[in-house]
Amino acid sequence: MIAREAPPWRGPARVAHPTDEGDTASVTETAYACLERDFARIAVLEDAAGILGWDARTTMPLGSADGRAEQLAALRGLVHETVTAERLAERLDAAEAERETLDPWQVANLREMRRTRIHAAAVPRDLVIARAKATARAEIVWREARRTSDFALLRPHLEEVLGLQRAIGQAKGAALGIPAYDALLDQYDPGLRQSRVDALFGPLRRILPDLIAQAQERQGRSAPPRPIEGAFPVEAQRALAETLMRAAGFDFTRGRLDVSLHPFCGGATGDVRITTRYDGTDFTRALMGVLHETGHALYEQGRPAAWQRQPVGRARGMTLHESQSLLIEMQACRSREFLGFLSPLIGRQFGREDPAWSPENLFRLYTRVAPGPIRVDADEVTYPAHILLRYDLERAMIAGDLAVADLPGAFKAGMKALLGLTVTDDADGCLQDIHWPSGGWGYFPTYTLGAVTAAQLFAAACEADAEIRPGLARGDFAPLVGWLRAHVHAAGSSRETDEIVTAATGRPADLDAFLAHLRRRYLGADA
Amino acid sequence: MIAREAPPWRGPARVAHPTDEGDTASVTETAYACLERDFARIAVLEDAAGILGWDARTTMPLGSADGRAEQLAALRGLVHETVTAERLAERLDAAEAERETLDPWQVANLREMRRTRIHAAAVPRDLVIARAKATARAEIVWREARRTSDFALLRPHLEEVLGLQRAIGQAKGAALGIPAYDALLDQYDPGLRQSRVDALFGPLRRILPDLIAQAQERQGRSAPPRPIEGAFPVEAQRALAETLMRAAGFDFTRGRLDVSLHPFCGGATGDVRITTRYDGTDFTRALMGVLHETGHALYEQGRPAAWQRQPVGRARGMTLHESQSLLIEMQACRSREFLGFLSPLIGRQFGREDPAWSPENLFRLYTRVAPGPIRVDADEVTYPAHILLRYDLERAMIAGDLAVADLPGAFKAGMKALLGLTVTDDADGCLQDIHWPSGGWGYFPTYTLGAVTAAQLFAAACEADAEIRPGLARGDFAPLVGWLRAHVHAAGSSRETDEIVTAATGRPADLDAFLAHLRRRYLGADA
Repeated sequence: MIAREAPPWRGPARVAHPTDEGDTASVTETAYACLERDFARIAVLEDAAGILGWDARTTMPLGSADGRAEQLAALRGLVHETVTAERLAERLDAAEAERETLDPWQVANLREMRRTRIHAAAVPRDLVIARAKATARAEIVWREARRTSDFALLRPHLEEVLGLQRAIGQAKGAALGIPAYDALLDQYDPGLRQSRVDALFGPLRRILPDLIAQAQERQGRSAPPRPIEGAFPVEAQRALAETLMRAAGFDFTRGRLDVSLHPFCGGATGDVRITTRYDGTDFTRALMGVLHETGHALYEQGRPAAWQRQPVGRARGMTLHESQSLLIEMQACRSREFLGFLSPLIGRQFGREDPAWSPENLFRLYTRVAPGPIRVDADEVTYPAHILLRYDLERAMIAGDLAVADLPGAFKAGMKALLGLTVTDDADGCLQDIHWPSGGWGYFPTYTLGAVTAAQLFAAACEADAEIRPGLARGDFAPLVGWLRAHVHAAGSSRETDEIVTAATGRPADLDAFLAHLRRRYLGADA
Repeated sequence: MIAREAPPWRGPARVAHPTDEGDTASVTETAYACLERDFARIAVLEDAAGILGWDARTTMPLGSADGRAEQLAALRGLVHETVTAERLAERLDAAEAERETLDPWQVANLREMRRTRIHAAAVPRDLVIARAKATARAEIVWREARRTSDFALLRPHLEEVLGLQRAIGQAKGAALGIPAYDALLDQYDPGLRQSRVDALFGPLRRILPDLIAQAQERQGRSAPPRPIEGAFPVEAQRALAETLMRAAGFDFTRGRLDVSLHPFCGGATGDVRITTRYDGTDFTRALMGVLHETGHALYEQGRPAAWQRQPVGRARGMTLHESQSLLIEMQACRSREFLGFLSPLIGRQFGREDPAWSPENLFRLYTRVAPGPIRVDADEVTYPAHILLRYDLERAMIAGDLAVADLPGAFKAGMKALLGLTVTDDADGCLQDIHWPSGGWGYFPTYTLGAVTAAQLFAAACEADAEIRPGLARGDFAPLVGWLRAHVHAAGSSRETDEIVTAATGRPADLDAFLAHLRRRYLGADA
């Protein structure tokens, strides 16, 4: 209703208003200043898409999916147009000439702008469209294929997606001067290369089987933990989750907690929304899920305030993002200190005492090692095995060394080799994840790189501030989150992942802290 | 995170994808076809803004208001750019030459496109920006001024908004060849002119005082209705509201019911969202409020399917929109037939019987005439008096015949003259509505024009289909809504308001049916 200016008492205003900012640069403006404006506009459109995406997964009526897809495609099209416009390339070049006038954050911002442009401009338009269509179709077919455990149904779609991912990797690789798989990694974690992943995953692959066996052997010596039994009203679970989010420093004036089928952290700049899914007969999973997403949200809420809508103000990449969720969930909230604080809160919230949520039993529930076929159900010790398998398989597929037709068998063989499990059903095997059908090749490694980085950051934080662990024991996250804000969140994308981790911990991420953590918690002093 | 393609398992996708549709027309495409694409793109952006606007009023955390304002401003800026682009003007001219090849709906679409463009292009950019800023400020100040009943606080802001509204009316009037106030009316109801409003409001102004007095006199002869007492859980109220929405034909696969401070109907094409506000001690207001918004929603859900994202597929204007909400609420749902159906549903939903919700008592509660100072609390008979007053005052202010400084006094004098009420507090007087501070000059008349039109449409519908009233008595809205779909909703903006009403009822809207309805319900057979 453009011509009818629907006012605030009637519904959303639909008036055509120009924005305050002109589209044409005044002659006195620097190229860099124009770029900041271009990217601020991009960020605002991405924020709009962020809220629409959140709505689609929490709120939207089912029949509105097509309309929403059009809205999101329109916004993405506008972002893509802006990033790939010739004018932006010219401004990037002109801004290089202004380098001496820029401060270090502006220089880093310029670097991130260029990185953004390379990724967007590297892929030909036809390929981008083909990818969007193929993954949209494959995601829909995947849901049905998983439900019926019918890999044959998905196979042609996955082959199509793989072909497109390979082409995208090659196109981006050519633009970046790196191999195709490296280019796919670079999409999710700027600067990440296969050589770096291999250097960490190689030793892990050798050490992990023994560690799993020893942890299981040790756990087998005592009776299993008491199970959680009874009814746990969703409203009480939600209230407890919000209490813990507040304790962790989540800012509810700029964020929300809601429900969705698959938990996620989304929303927009200054409006960070996490979700969970409640089970009325067991509060433990939703509770730790919320704390995990809170870790992501704290990173988003802690990004540098002055650079919120600029590339340099973004979270650095998915390795650091996963490190923040896993640090809060695995390092802080599954610790004996925090569970000692949590235990009486649970009793108070549900209005009864139960030995199932004694600090000791909670710790045993939350650190139970039990190899199983499903990645998202995996414990902290066996989880890396799921990632190693997927990393091997997706590299082989991108390289052309593994045909999609052979994926089910290779997946089963890998599960047998890595965890000793016999998977009979593809629904519990290579059909369990949405990542590959939806085009997320190169993403899986960041989960375990995040776990490794989380352990190193947490160890450094606890060493730097002796108040962090005692703080967790009284539900006071301020010392921990203060350290994370200063050493991780506030850095935004001003430095590379390795530089941020080195500045925070003295060295790039290695396996030492992660393995020490697992050994202490599952084999040693904490076990 | 453009370069990092956040996938569906992590959060909203933030990939830069071009849309499927190219931005450049192929040489064989007609100008009209290009225009359809331009306006479809506009509609998609407006839909995105519609969902973001809904979110802002139902869901958004308070601290995110600035970011949301930027998102909405960006979308509106894009719409405005597209509508006012020189290329669009050229295409409109070129399409005129193609007229002979167009079918009647395409011709009407072209007319609506031009109307949209005239309204958007008539106002100079500086004026649009000044209006956006001034109304944003005035709305904020208005909240405080109403809270403290301090007109002096609002006065300078209202003066600024008035000056801008006058300038906008003059600019649009010059483009349309009509006076300024007509141009303001035309924003909300294309084709509506002051002469038309006067022709209906003149007689109404003479007839109304006697009607109010007689209705009150008649009601005074019997004891007042029993009040609603007790507790009415929000969840049960919501369930009852949804039951009635379903009965009325609301499609929940393409819409929602939620909660907001001020009820509205918003959302997007194919995703129509209404809101209400529950009072745990009285269900009557939320219930009728939901039915009112359902009337708006049915219009939106019933717009012509083939033209959903084109100007010709829009609802015709606010008079017809208000007519649809008031037809459902006032004509259908406050009827004795419907209240007879509703009464036992209430008992079942709240699990108890009470003479307060007997059909007779419900009817008396829902048709109580009681002059009061607040427009939104007014009954069906005194409501037009509130509109007559605002219509007089806003015309006088736009014409320069009434200074803002004199508004409080003029408002009080008008309330005294029209309803015999002494208003002591400006919060209960000229500060009660957000319309003027937020720039909604020219909107008020559509409320009463809608009520008048609703009565005429309902009378014609009942005459055309004898099943409509008996249907309401069993909660079957299909005959009524089927008639509305065919005679109002499906017309979209293919014809002018008067043409649609004439085709449906045999004549343009006049006062006959409305007055007959009021006399029957309040003085006659139904009373």
